[in-house]
Amino acid sequence: MSGTGKEFMEKTQYRYLDISDQSAGYPQPALELGDNNTGKIIDLPQPKEIQVRDIDLRQAIEKRTSIRNYSSEPLSIEELSYLLWCTQGVKEVVRNVVTFRTVPSAGARHALETYILANNVKGLEKGLYRFLPIEHKLVEIDMEKNIADKIKRGCLDQAFVKTSAATFIWTAVPYRMEWRYGQRGYRYLHLDAGHTCQNLYLSAESVGCGVCAIAAFLDEEINPAIGVDGENEFVIYVATVGKK
Amino acid sequence: MSGTGKEFMEKTQYRYLDISDQSAGYPQPALELGDNNTGKIIDLPQPKEIQVRDIDLRQAIEKRTSIRNYSSEPLSIEELSYLLWCTQGVKEVVRNVVTFRTVPSAGARHALETYILANNVKGLEKGLYRFLPIEHKLVEIDMEKNIADKIKRGCLDQAFVKTSAATFIWTAVPYRMEWRYGQRGYRYLHLDAGHTCQNLYLSAESVGCGVCAIAAFLDEEINPAIGVDGENEFVIYVATVGKK
Repeated sequence: MSGTGKEFMEKTQYRYLDISDQSAGYPQPALELGDNNTGKIIDLPQPKEIQVRDIDLRQAIEKRTSIRNYSSEPLSIEELSYLLWCTQGVKEVVRNVVTFRTVPSAGARHALETYILANNVKGLEKGLYRFLPIEHKLVEIDMEKNIADKIKRGCLDQAFVKTSAATFIWTAVPYRMEWRYGQRGYRYLHLDAGHTCQNLYLSAESVGCGVCAIAAFLDEEINPAIGVDGENEFVIYVATVGKK
Repeated sequence: MSGTGKEFMEKTQYRYLDISDQSAGYPQPALELGDNNTGKIIDLPQPKEIQVRDIDLRQAIEKRTSIRNYSSEPLSIEELSYLLWCTQGVKEVVRNVVTFRTVPSAGARHALETYILANNVKGLEKGLYRFLPIEHKLVEIDMEKNIADKIKRGCLDQAFVKTSAATFIWTAVPYRMEWRYGQRGYRYLHLDAGHTCQNLYLSAESVGCGVCAIAAFLDEEINPAIGVDGENEFVIYVATVGKK
């Protein structure tokens, strides 16, 4: 498969963009997946009511390092709520067509979704959830006992996927980006996932946690493990979080 | 070119990875491009001697927004040095084979380079520079009068590329990533550029600046404009910075 990356960069040059679905008048895709009546909805504490430690930005940047070993202390649901807020929180929904979030996204398309594998979160049953960013809630996705093992296997069996307090799994819903930017949008999906993960690294410092990003995963294992088809929605980035 | 992105994701699945050049015993590429005797070297103030405003991380995250209009107040060379530090600063070079930086990178490969288009930086002549992260210096790349116009044209003629105090242009040197991760590394290059740009957004707050990220650029114009071949090194992300 040599040359795949180079070919991707060449074929996604601006000048090769076809007319976008947006320009062609196709309707805009939904701003988020929503709950789809798939499972129980879990309220999260509202970010503005959550107190976290004041932490100097420069210190957070300078001290950041990847941490794979976590203590057995659980993450509280307030802390999880705060981390979700800092990574994908919706500050404003404008005219029902665009969301402004705590992270930037190309054209504010915000084509990512956040799944949480809860391993050790106080007040949250172990299992897989999806974040509803507009509602700031979680929806249950998979509460089967083996879900953590399946996701761990999808991450090349790296143990800290399961020993973390929570593992963030970001997926991309590419059409949300493609609708405006065509195939070049696949570049932007990855840039956006990078913004988001960096905010997780930094905001985790405010709640005494360490983070380790994971981009080495078996697409064909992790996508079915979390119940996405790998095409209309696929895992783009993973990060573990836990108390230091 | 429909299907290009999907094809890229499919062909860069972990299971399709060929044996890496690293595993095959090829020598590791250099940690940075270095100065190559291409131009004058400019010392930057050392980060640890630069005082910036303490700023609360949560506030920086919550207030972040993209800003395209800048005042005519210049950026100081200290402020520029600080922003370079926060986005690509080298905290440690380990056994001359790996750098640890203020941003995370897949396998600490750190395959990005930073070019600075200085439009309005006090103490720095207008022109294009490259950052030397290990030395924490700049090297002159192009001091021709029309360089800003060429880069602006490469960014679809967006005026704020030139009205910014400085425009950051990140390139990728893909082999530095491919050497270990093969073609899948092209995903990681974009994730890494996202981490880096997010740190620019946040750290700019400490020096009273706003930022706007740009991923819409004409590859075939911007690459030659900054003097890279678009294959062994290519522009991956751009961001403007200026006083609010």
